[in-house]
Order: sequence, then C-alpha cells, then structure tokens
Amino acid sequence: MGNSFGKIFTITTFGESHGPAIGLVIDGCLPNIEVDFDLIKKDLQRRKPGQSNISTPRNESEEFEILSGVFEGKTLGTPISIIVRNKDVKSSDYNTLKDIFRPSHADYTYQTKYGIRDHRGGGRQSARETVARVIAGSFAKMILKKLGVKIQAYVSQVHSIKVSKPYFLLDLDATENNIVRCPEPETAALMEQAILQAKADGDSLGGVISCVISGAPLGLGEPVFDKIHADLGKAMLSINAVKGFDIGLGFDSVLLKGSEQNDSFTLENNSVRTKTNNSGGVQGGISNGEDIYFRVAFKPVASIKSEQESVTNSLKEVKFSIEGRHDSCVVPRAIPIVEAMAALVLVDHYLRNAAVKVQPFA
Amino acid sequence: MGNSFGKIFTITTFGESHGPAIGLVIDGCLPNIEVDFDLIKKDLQRRKPGQSNISTPRNESEEFEILSGVFEGKTLGTPISIIVRNKDVKSSDYNTLKDIFRPSHADYTYQTKYGIRDHRGGGRQSARETVARVIAGSFAKMILKKLGVKIQAYVSQVHSIKVSKPYFLLDLDATENNIVRCPEPETAALMEQAILQAKADGDSLGGVISCVISGAPLGLGEPVFDKIHADLGKAMLSINAVKGFDIGLGFDSVLLKGSEQNDSFTLENNSVRTKTNNSGGVQGGISNGEDIYFRVAFKPVASIKSEQESVTNSLKEVKFSIEGRHDSCVVPRAIPIVEAMAALVLVDHYLRNAAVKVQPFA
Amino acid sequence: MGNSFGKIFTITTFGESHGPAIGLVIDGCLPNIEVDFDLIKKDLQRRKPGQSNISTPRNESEEFEILSGVFEGKTLGTPISIIVRNKDVKSSDYNTLKDIFRPSHADYTYQTKYGIRDHRGGGRQSARETVARVIAGSFAKMILKKLGVKIQAYVSQVHSIKVSKPYFLLDLDATENNIVRCPEPETAALMEQAILQAKADGDSLGGVISCVISGAPLGLGEPVFDKIHADLGKAMLSINAVKGFDIGLGFDSVLLKGSEQNDSFTLENNSVRTKTNNSGGVQGGISNGEDIYFRVAFKPVASIKSEQESVTNSLKEVKFSIEGRHDSCVVPRAIPIVEAMAALVLVDHYLRNAAVKVQPFA
Amino acid sequence: MGNSFGKIFTITTFGESHGPAIGLVIDGCLPNIEVDFDLIKKDLQRRKPGQSNISTPRNESEEFEILSGVFEGKTLGTPISIIVRNKDVKSSDYNTLKDIFRPSHADYTYQTKYGIRDHRGGGRQSARETVARVIAGSFAKMILKKLGVKIQAYVSQVHSIKVSKPYFLLDLDATENNIVRCPEPETAALMEQAILQAKADGDSLGGVISCVISGAPLGLGEPVFDKIHADLGKAMLSINAVKGFDIGLGFDSVLLKGSEQNDSFTLENNSVRTKTNNSGGVQGGISNGEDIYFRVAFKPVASIKSEQESVTNSLKEVKFSIEGRHDSCVVPRAIPIVEAMAALVLVDHYLRNAAVKVQPFA
Repeated sequence: MGNSFGKIFTITTFGESHGPAIGLVIDGCLPNIEVDFDLIKKDLQRRKPGQSNISTPRNESEEFEILSGVFEGKTLGTPISIIVRNKDVKSSDYNTLKDIFRPSHADYTYQTKYGIRDHRGGGRQSARETVARVIAGSFAKMILKKLGVKIQAYVSQVHSIKVSKPYFLLDLDATENNIVRCPEPETAALMEQAILQAKADGDSLGGVISCVISGAPLGLGEPVFDKIHADLGKAMLSINAVKGFDIGLGFDSVLLKGSEQNDSFTLENNSVRTKTNNSGGVQGGISNGEDIYFRVAFKPVASIKSEQESVTNSLKEVKFSIEGRHDSCVVPRAIPIVEAMAALVLVDHYLRNAAVKVQPFA
Repeated sequence: MGNSFGKIFTITTFGESHGPAIGLVIDGCLPNIEVDFDLIKKDLQRRKPGQSNISTPRNESEEFEILSGVFEGKTLGTPISIIVRNKDVKSSDYNTLKDIFRPSHADYTYQTKYGIRDHRGGGRQSARETVARVIAGSFAKMILKKLGVKIQAYVSQVHSIKVSKPYFLLDLDATENNIVRCPEPETAALMEQAILQAKADGDSLGGVISCVISGAPLGLGEPVFDKIHADLGKAMLSINAVKGFDIGLGFDSVLLKGSEQNDSFTLENNSVRTKTNNSGGVQGGISNGEDIYFRVAFKPVASIKSEQESVTNSLKEVKFSIEGRHDSCVVPRAIPIVEAMAALVLVDHYLRNAAVKVQPFA
Repeated sequence: MGNSFGKIFTITTFGESHGPAIGLVIDGCLPNIEVDFDLIKKDLQRRKPGQSNISTPRNESEEFEILSGVFEGKTLGTPISIIVRNKDVKSSDYNTLKDIFRPSHADYTYQTKYGIRDHRGGGRQSARETVARVIAGSFAKMILKKLGVKIQAYVSQVHSIKVSKPYFLLDLDATENNIVRCPEPETAALMEQAILQAKADGDSLGGVISCVISGAPLGLGEPVFDKIHADLGKAMLSINAVKGFDIGLGFDSVLLKGSEQNDSFTLENNSVRTKTNNSGGVQGGISNGEDIYFRVAFKPVASIKSEQESVTNSLKEVKFSIEGRHDSCVVPRAIPIVEAMAALVLVDHYLRNAAVKVQPFA
Repeated sequence: MGNSFGKIFTITTFGESHGPAIGLVIDGCLPNIEVDFDLIKKDLQRRKPGQSNISTPRNESEEFEILSGVFEGKTLGTPISIIVRNKDVKSSDYNTLKDIFRPSHADYTYQTKYGIRDHRGGGRQSARETVARVIAGSFAKMILKKLGVKIQAYVSQVHSIKVSKPYFLLDLDATENNIVRCPEPETAALMEQAILQAKADGDSLGGVISCVISGAPLGLGEPVFDKIHADLGKAMLSINAVKGFDIGLGFDSVLLKGSEQNDSFTLENNSVRTKTNNSGGVQGGISNGEDIYFRVAFKPVASIKSEQESVTNSLKEVKFSIEGRHDSCVVPRAIPIVEAMAALVLVDHYLRNAAVKVQPFA
C-alpha cells in the first residue's frame, strides 16, 4: 500500500534500488499528448548522480524504456508504463551494512514493519525511487505546458546560507546556471563551498528548496480535505529526507498581523487580482490565479562517512562508517523531484476540476 | 469531491456554516468500541467559541446527535453519522458582505470554482466545519486510548512570542490550565496580552501549534507516498488558516549537519531506541516508536475589523469593514482540531498496518 | 468500510432500520443544479412500503430533510447531506427474533463479522437503507435529464411469469400503470395474482427487473476494470436480495454463434450505429451510444410467515415464524432502486469521462 | 483511469497487445510470502494460446520477469512488478483492419473515447491483458493456500451443451483432464466437437464458466456497497467478453419460493452451518463459511472468419473478413482468468477484514 499518488492522474511507482529495475505506471494521462522525450531526458539528467563535483559519483543508469500507453509518439489514454534498469549496482558495497540499522535511515522501521527488507542500497527506501517520480512529472509537465503553467524550483538555503530576496526579485531562469541550482550566483558560490567542506569532513548538509508555479488556472483544489496546498504538502513530505513544508509566507506569516497578511483584492484590466500575494496563490484551498509558491525543508543526508553508533538486526550495539558513494547535500539534485511532484498535483487537480467545470453544465 | 479523509477509517464531513447542520460520517470504525460521550463533549467544549475573553463571543451550538452506527452505547462497525444543528445564526450580519470578496477568505475562489456560494458566514469555507473533525477525532481517540497512544497539542507561538523550551522539557499536562493553551504560564500570559491588544486594535494574530504523540506503535506509515508524516502534513494543511507544517526538527534541521542530526540507535532494556529524536519519531515514513512531534503554522485570522479594500461579485472596487464576531487569534481553539486530525491519521494507519500484520501471516 | 459508492459522484449512506435516521452524503455533485424536489418525492413514493395491496403495510416515513449542499434551491458543489427519520418503528416486533439468526438474512454474518449487531428490523442490513440510494439517484437523474438520458426499469419476471417481448417492443411508459410495474398489462395481472397467492400462503416470490438506459452519451466506461457494465453489475449486486446481473443478451448470448451475436456497424445519417444491439450498448466496457439494457435477478424475500428452522446466538436450534409486516414480492418496489443505482453509475462515469474530454485538449 | 483493481491488495495492469510488454504492479501484497514460481507458470500455461487444437495457434510469449518486490524468493511487502514481453507479434496481420471498426469489438468505442487507438491486435482492448490478471491471481492464490481456500473454475456450458449436475455432484479435480476443462468427460467431448465445428464454419461459440470457492473464511465482504458478491460480480464482468454473472442459484432462484430458497441454519459439531446453500455462501454481502459458487457468461468470440459488414474510421461502409488466428471458443482458456479474479477479490477482502478483526480489539 501507499505506492500510488493522485486521484485521476494516478502514478504508481515500484522498484528497489538494487533490484532489476525502477519503474512506474501512469493511469489517467490524457490521450493524444505528444511525448516530449527530450524533456524526460533533461529532467532525469538534472536528477542524475555524478552530474557535478558536489554530487555522488555513482553512475546510475537513467535509460528509460516505455512499455505501454504510447503509440507512434503519442499517449493513448491507456496506462503508461516506463522502466529504468538498475545497472551500476555495487551491492557488495552494502554487505558490511547488511545487518546494521543505519541511523536516520529506514532500515529499522522497514525491518520491524515487514519482517524482511532488501538491504542493498536501501532497497525500496532508497531515493533511487524518485527516478520514477521525475519521469511521471515530465509527463505532467507536457500537459501543463499546453496550459501555460510553469514550475520553477530552486535552492534557497543550504545549511545556514540563504538567498537574500523573495522569489519575485530573483531571476529564476538563472537557476540552472550553477551546479547548486541557486539563482543568486554569489550565494550559490557560498553554498557550493559549504557543501565541498562538508564532503571533505565526511559530513552532510540539508537545505531548503523553494518552488514557484506561475500561470496556474483558477479553481484548482477541492475543499475541504484535498485543498491544493494540502496535496502539495503531502506530495513534498513524501520525498525522502523532507521534514517541512510551507506555502506563501508560511511559518513567517505568524509574525504578521491580519491587517498586514491579508491580500486585498483589486481590479486589473477588469479581472480580479490580489495586491499582495502573502497567501501564496491559494485561498480556502483553491488556487486564485496568483503565483503559487512554497518551501520544502530537507534534512542533511543520513549517509555520512564519520563513525556512527547503532544496533544490528541481532540486537548488538556497533560502531561503523558508511563507505558508499553518497551526496553531501542532496538538494541540488532534488530540484527536479520537487518540480515533478508539484506538476503531478497540479495536473491531477486540473483533471479533478474538469468534473466541476464539465460541459454542458459550466 | 475532497470532503473525505482516510483510507480505512474514513470520515466525510458536510455542512455550511449557516445551513441546517454540520455533520460527518465515519466509515470504518471498529465495532464494539464503547462511546465516550464525555470525551466528545470535552473536545467540543475546547473548540467552542465564547469559551473565554480571547475567543469570539459567538454562541454556537455544539449539541451533537448520533444518527447511526451506535447501538446501546457501542459502535456497530457500521457508518457512524453525527450532526450538530446550526443555531445561533445571525445571517443578517453577513448581508452587507454578501457581494464582497473578503480578502484572504475563500469567497472569490469558491465563486469562481463553483459559480455559486453560500455567502452566509463563509458557508462551507467556514471553520465551523471543524466541529465535524473534532467529533471524528474523539472517536479516533477512543481507539488510541486502548492502544496507549496519547496526543497532546499546545500553543507554542503567538505572533512573535514563543515558548522557551522543547516539548520534552515542558509540562504538557499544564496546557489546559490557561485560556491560551500554552503550557508555560508566563509565556501564556504574554500571549494573552498580545491577543487582547490585537482585539482592541481590530486586528488579528497568527500562531504555531506544536503536537506530541507518545506511545505510537512501531510500523505506522506506508511508503512511499503515504508516509505517516506526509499524511499528518496533509491533515494539518487541510485545516483552515494553516500555512505550514514540519516534523521533528523540521525547518530547523536544515541548520544541523548530518553528524548532528542523525539519531543513533541504542539498546534500552533489550529494545531498540534512538539516543536522540531529531527525526520526530519517523524514519522512511514509518513510525519508529519514539515520540512523534510536529508543528503547525496558522496565519492570522482573515476577518478583521479594520477597513479593507476589495472587489465585489459585480467587479466593483470597495472599502469595507467586517463587523461580525470573530476571534482575534484562533490558535487556542484550534488545539482540539490539530489533535483530532492527528488522531484520525494515527488510527487510519493503525488499521492500514493491520493488513500487513494480519494473522496467521505475522 | 464499503458504505461509499462512486469515484467522483460519490455517495455514502448510513443508518440502521430502527435507529434515529437513514441518510446519505453526496460528494462531487455538480454545482448550480436546480433541485427537483418533486422528483425525489416521486421516486421515494415508488419505493415506499404500503403503496398497494401487494406491498408491506408498514408505514415508513419518507420525509427527507436536506442538511447541506443546497442553497436557495440549487446545489452548491459542496457535500449534499440528507436524512430521513425512522418513525413507524415497531422494534418490539423484533424482540422475539432478537437472538435468532433468520435464514437467508444477514443476522449470522453480521454477528460473526462485527461481534455485535442491531437486531431491530435488520439494522444496517435492512432494505430501508435503499431510501438513501433512491434519494441519491434522484439527484443523479437531475443531471442526466439535462443530458437527455432516460432510465426506465420494469418488472420483467415474477416467479415463472415473464413478459413476452424484448424491451424495444414494450411500451415502457406503461410501466407505472399497474402496481406490479410490468408494462404488459395482462402479464402484470398474472404477476399480481401470483404475489397475492404467495402472500396468502405466508410465502414469498422473487423476480427479475429489466432496465433500459436510452440517450447515454458515447464513451462512458473506463477500461479495463471499471468497464461501464462492470460498475453497473456491482451497483445492482449491491442491492439487497439481488443474485444475478446480465447485460445485453447476457446469459442468452451463450446460445448464439459469433455470426449471430455480432452487432454490425452501419451508417445512419452519417453517424455510426449498430444494426443490432445484442451487446446492450457497451463494447469493450465503453458505451457506444445505443440503448444500454440489463437484467437484475432478485431472490424471493427471506422474511416469510411459514415456520422455519434456525439457530440462536447462544447456539441452540429453534423453530420460529416471522410475524413482521413484509413484502411477499419486493421487485415492484425495487424499480426505483435499480433506476437509482443505474443513474449513479452513469453520472459518475460521465464525470470521469470529463477528465478524458477536458478542454482545451479535446 | 480504471486500470487498478482492489482496495488493499491492489493490482494495476498495463500494456497493449502488440506494444513492448504486458505487465502489472501489485501493491499491498503481504511480506514474507514465498513465491511459487511453478504456480505462476502453470496458471499462465492454462491461459496460453496454442495449448490445444481448440485454441488459437498464436504462440504468445508467457515468459515473465519480476522487476521488484521479491527478494531472495520472498515478497518484500513493497510493490511487485512483473512484465511479459510481447514476442510473436504479427502486426501486419492487422494492417488490413487498421481502419475498420470490427463489429462487437471495442475499436469504435476506444476511437471515439480517446480519439486515438493502437489498432494492432486490439491494443489495450485485447484479451492479452489478462496475462497480467493471471499472474496477479497466482500471487493471491499463494496467500489463499495458506488460509486453506481453494478456487476451482470449470466450463459448465458451451453454446447449448451443459453439464448435467450441480457442482457438488461433479468431480472438480477432473476439470483439467480434458482440453475443454469440463469435469464431465462425456459433456466435454460434445463441447469439443461443437467448438471444432464452429472453427470449421469460421464461426465462434460462447459459454459459461462456473466457479467454486471452498474454505473461504467467514466474514468477508463489506456492506453495503462492497458486498463480496458485488465485488466478485464486478471482477468477472471486467473480463473481456463477459456479459453476465450470478451467484448461488442466481437467475434460477427467481423460480423458487422463499420457503424453498431460504437456507435454514443448523448446528454441525457445534458450529453454525446452513442445511442448503442456495445463497452461494453469501448472506447480506458477507461470506457465511459455506461454498461460494457463481456463474460467468461469455458471449461468443467477436473475431470470426465469416464476412461481416462494418464502417471505417473515415465513415465508409465496408465488407470484410478477419483473417487472424483466433479462438473459436475462449472459455476453456478463460478458466484461470476467472480463478485469478476470484482470488484477487478474496484476498483483498481478507485484508480489508483484517481492519475489522484487528488486535487487540477482536
């Protein structure tokens, strides 16, 4: 249970890190969408390990194969299934860790829940699963593109280093210009330096990803439980290592008074707009046509080279180090994952809203 | 759509603020649970407007009627339906606002999504809907009580005033001793003062609620999308006025290095425990037996007495004030709502886990 | 679990036969639909006990109260909740049966599944629950009416007495002209006679309801599991006492060869039609624009006056008779229930299809 | 949408007949189940084309590859994904039919619903999809085996030739002794003869499959909509070419009076049993511990060699013949499909019931 996401545009992911393949099924994709293979490749490339000196040197395969749902380059409206074979698999790396519950990993919780686990590379708990999410997200983006919706995520914080400005003062198109994926070049440089230092120390850093959705249609979100930001929150919190989510001013809105926080309505070319956008484009759980923006907090990577204490399967206390090839900071590579999950939520709610705006009733 | 929550212990809520009634259906409640009527009343009392000088003087009815699913004081395993009639309804209060899109309310988004809305008291967008959540939560708590699970929420921040200690250094049993529901008496006093000042100013304040779940069983949470904290996050973000959620150290974990954040495993009386609990009781989306704790950020109440600018249904710009009886800070009354939503997530996942631990296979 | 039906137009029913009320919530109803109160009353009247000398003389209340989701006569797009109070409740009638598992009733299975049951009038297993379905169906019909879809059910068989012609040779508008609801007057007379004889004998009869949906849009049904006729079948089989379902020629199609069964396509005014309609308007699980017709088999009513043998809660063998006021043949009153369930399936699939035909993609 | 089945033990199937692969994902399978590879192979072999002179000579590949969810021969509790590559693909066979809507196939309905279709071999509408169902069913059977549940389907009718006895007088273990899979040898011989004659005539025959589930636990089924037989009915009606379903005496129960149909309870070794089993092991939608038995009606195969009339994509009327390699009667090969779908329903409800019988509450 729990491996599917979305109510109409529904994805199901599968696969263990060191098993034969990672994959996904998309059920509910619109028919007749031209598949943008370059977009999929580009998004996978942005998630790929080994893309820079601040990411793990693991050379994971990202070659995907479409098994169904696409015919002569277009979606059929039937389930789209795609797999990515696991290739550069050094399972032996993990043999020494086979019996150890790695701290702040899910070895212990998987073992106690299921009574069995694939210990190799984390098995199902591995972030390799996000390959499937990124591919699904690319399909969602193909639909959003036609709707004029743009999703741009960027690294806004690494450890204690933060961007200096709100999103609307940044040049988000500059995000991909550096390996940290921070649109402020000088801040990016400091972040890179901090990550390299952590790497040298055998340690790891966390960070915050900010994400901006512009051009989102009015009316997305289903009160009362499936508010658009509740589903965005769940989507983000389901990503490995994420520990927090807020939308609009989020936790900072607590520091404002109602008179400061409220977004007054005004008319702009005869259409209703808000003067400010402290709400982050959502009111009552429904998108209001303004930019949707939110933050996602990632804890530091749990796999570190420094010696740690833990317990084994057979309940013995041990000291050990993790020798595998790991990121010292995962947030630059998590950018396409955040975008993908956002895209999935948007498309799903777009299709759900179609059942409210259905012809000939709307 | 979107008015149901939970996969096995599923609640559906209904009702507009000034319609005949607010209500709910619980489908999937265990049979043979003795109904604790006092608990329901107590939880409703904690949510009730007019309970103190810092809450709205509206005198809402909270008398509930059980329509089904309970027989001779016990649950039947069939759907439990409960309604609360809306009584102290001053719809005329809202007539002047009938055509105005109140800033940072959902008038505009409901109107554009549905092409119709019940403007009286916010209709479906009103926080009156949370009456239904609180009742559902009380039923969930009846089950959790038998499992030894305790849920304690408290106000940890109002505007810029914060409690000074982490939860495990606070006396959470003292939470109900003051009207702010903050377990630090001196901080509570400052918060109360701030709220009264905002009230005097015709303004409003936001706040943060912290929640601690102790005694939660190991193994709750379904990777990869239905991680326990992803479902907790969605639950909290679906509450009116909530703009942020984090678990464990949350956004603050970004400031730690991996070596500082990781929770080492150790043995305690031959059972596996973590030395620290920075993860907030969850690893890989599955509960690890430690305390689950999280924070929920509430923006300031949108209904304020100060003059505001907005737009009408017929696209005219207007200035107006909200004269209704509103809270200046909603967080003290939101405590039982946060607890209720947490209880719903816990029980639902407890029942979902039953399908993993089913006899004779486990 | 199991008390909800539909994926987008979702109903949840609740209520025990002799509890305070029977009710329902519709989530996902289109906004701005004018509520046709007369239709609801008419459909309830057709289901009502005591409507003729062949139905039970029980005088059940059918007064419904709308608690939410309707404002100034129109649907809001929010959950519609409706209750019907249980009034003419002679619970004492059931005291003698309190501990007896009535044969071919669900007393025994409820007791073993839940360890508790409301024995009064069958509790949740009572067909009184179908009041809620009929009301929900009326709402679905309000939507279908605008789409030009017509649903007409009729009694085609009682015990061994059958109508003599296929549906398209019958005058379905004559169905309501007699108390059996059989459109062939002479056959209706024979059926009525058989039912009265069974009543005199303290026995009961089963029957078959045939249902015709005309004007259904092309394209309803989601392969591969949610085929339109699979969902219709589930809908019908969920009605009390139903033991069989078939569509088109159904079980009789087994007696045809492929060359006889196949529905050739032809052009009619430049649109694609089938020459015959042996498939019953569905091909590959998707409606093809022809009439959808199907049959529903009802076993004889289990409550009979004749002496029966059974076992008690405390595992004693007993002989007993059921003295309550029961129908001798339930099919005439089940007509609006079959129509209601068909309407629910149609509307739900109409809204699901909206996510395939969504603008600007279709 | 519509490509998933089951609420807890959920399968999602994917794949077009002549695309790269057919496959499935099982989410919600219990962990630590030893995979019975021989059972999967055996079930696939029973479904396989070309297994006898009465089935199509197509030589489809049935080699399956497990991509996830199984580790060292045991299930992990994570999603199990399995694919079967499509090999003996003579797409060119279908080129002449590319633009023709084959009568009683889903070419026309897919085209109108999606605006696109994979015409090769029927694409997604092909019964090749049932390969995935059979594999999923084998996993369900592994669980049922441990519970002592046995599912036995057999051919009870081909065209007008029927078995002469009810199931409990037949030797169901003899079913696999002949290529028709009818447990009465003499009837099987007549059926085989009829099928060969139809084949010689370029025509096709339908049939009925009966299925018996013995050893099913008490208490499976969730009233009111998810009655066990409602879900079995949906499962069967979702299989290609199925037009009818009934349970217990089904349509024949209409011919009995209540006094004849009712299943009296009695005590047998101190446990509650029914004297007869006309209800087919289900009362009020919940299994009562007796044998569950039902019938499934298959229309004759739509692909026939005889000339037919139809219409093309471009709205021209045509005459044509289908030259592909098709079964003249599909029911012998549909036996494992019926069993598989029954097994899926049983396991799903077994796991759902676990949330009613959960410890420490039951």
